[in-house]
Amino acid sequence: MKKRIITISREFGSGGRTVGALVAQKLGIPFYDQELIEKAVEATGFSRDFISEAGEYASTTSRFLFNMSLSSSYSNVGIPSNFDKIYIAQNNIIRSLADEGPCVIVGRCADYVLRDREDCINVFVHADLEFRKKHVLENYGEMEGTSIEKRLEEKDKKRSLYYKHYTGRSWGDSRNYHVSIDTGVVGVDRAVAWIVDLFNSEK
Amino acid sequence: MKKRIITISREFGSGGRTVGALVAQKLGIPFYDQELIEKAVEATGFSRDFISEAGEYASTTSRFLFNMSLSSSYSNVGIPSNFDKIYIAQNNIIRSLADEGPCVIVGRCADYVLRDREDCINVFVHADLEFRKKHVLENYGEMEGTSIEKRLEEKDKKRSLYYKHYTGRSWGDSRNYHVSIDTGVVGVDRAVAWIVDLFNSEK
Repeated sequence: MKKRIITISREFGSGGRTVGALVAQKLGIPFYDQELIEKAVEATGFSRDFISEAGEYASTTSRFLFNMSLSSSYSNVGIPSNFDKIYIAQNNIIRSLADEGPCVIVGRCADYVLRDREDCINVFVHADLEFRKKHVLENYGEMEGTSIEKRLEEKDKKRSLYYKHYTGRSWGDSRNYHVSIDTGVVGVDRAVAWIVDLFNSEK
Repeated sequence: MKKRIITISREFGSGGRTVGALVAQKLGIPFYDQELIEKAVEATGFSRDFISEAGEYASTTSRFLFNMSLSSSYSNVGIPSNFDKIYIAQNNIIRSLADEGPCVIVGRCADYVLRDREDCINVFVHADLEFRKKHVLENYGEMEGTSIEKRLEEKDKKRSLYYKHYTGRSWGDSRNYHVSIDTGVVGVDRAVAWIVDLFNSEK
């Protein structure tokens, strides 16, 4: 079946967001990342900063609260936590966007949310530690009081936990994606070319 | 660094072996699968059939023995089991072959065995259940008394167990490979083209 939607999941600092943006640019289709946050702000009334963090992993300022929320959302069926509310709002937004037409969606368990569609290409982007450290420092700069290794570890851990909680799947297991790419070895440009090639195929 | 060695790990029935053979053919470099078995027979004196099974997963005729061997090889350091002897012989063979020149090596934890080399491209090939069922029936035929689903499940389980035991890593986790491909969506020909493209790059 002809593919229309591309979802990108990525390790922090792997260049996955850049890959997604370039693929969208080359294909001339919308790229949803920040726009997803804006739409979730509208839908839920939560602040932009809160959605930005909680919509993909725990709030950086409240890990304890996030963990509490994860465990309580199992026991209090029918009483969604704020995190669950954001997840549900994002799900609806992602499904609507996919219905509207071809696009690239970054993060937010989009591969899982759209799992019943047969027109998705699900991509996972990762890279070795050296590549990611360099990428993060170049794109986001240093963060006082936290080493780069610690930042990478924390972000990955949170994304993994978030994905596991909402999908029951292992984040980064190749069998959840159609293509997984190490940008440190494959390179961003080649990764983009491969995904565009696959999107344009009839297979 | 210019890449010279390609290792292929694969789910049973995903067409990973075919991908590896075609890549080797296109690049004009040796393809090691059966030949690895012959070399291990020479090195260990074990039978071809035993090496063929035990060299990548448990003996199909002796799962109990395999499990026993796995646990005993931890406790009896210095007394390698027959499975360990085969693993060690295969390791030496894989390292020698990689030293000889560019090649494609299928299975047998080659990605892990050659982990200290920087000139490897490690590939994982997988596919959805329908693709794999079709591929197995077309290439290996039916097996009396065992459903195709059961055969796939068993083989994957054994490969996963074997990989975990000898490498400590999770089989199929995308971060152990540079490229992971779902042949059901990407297709065998496109998978071959991508790997050849990467091999020929300077990156």
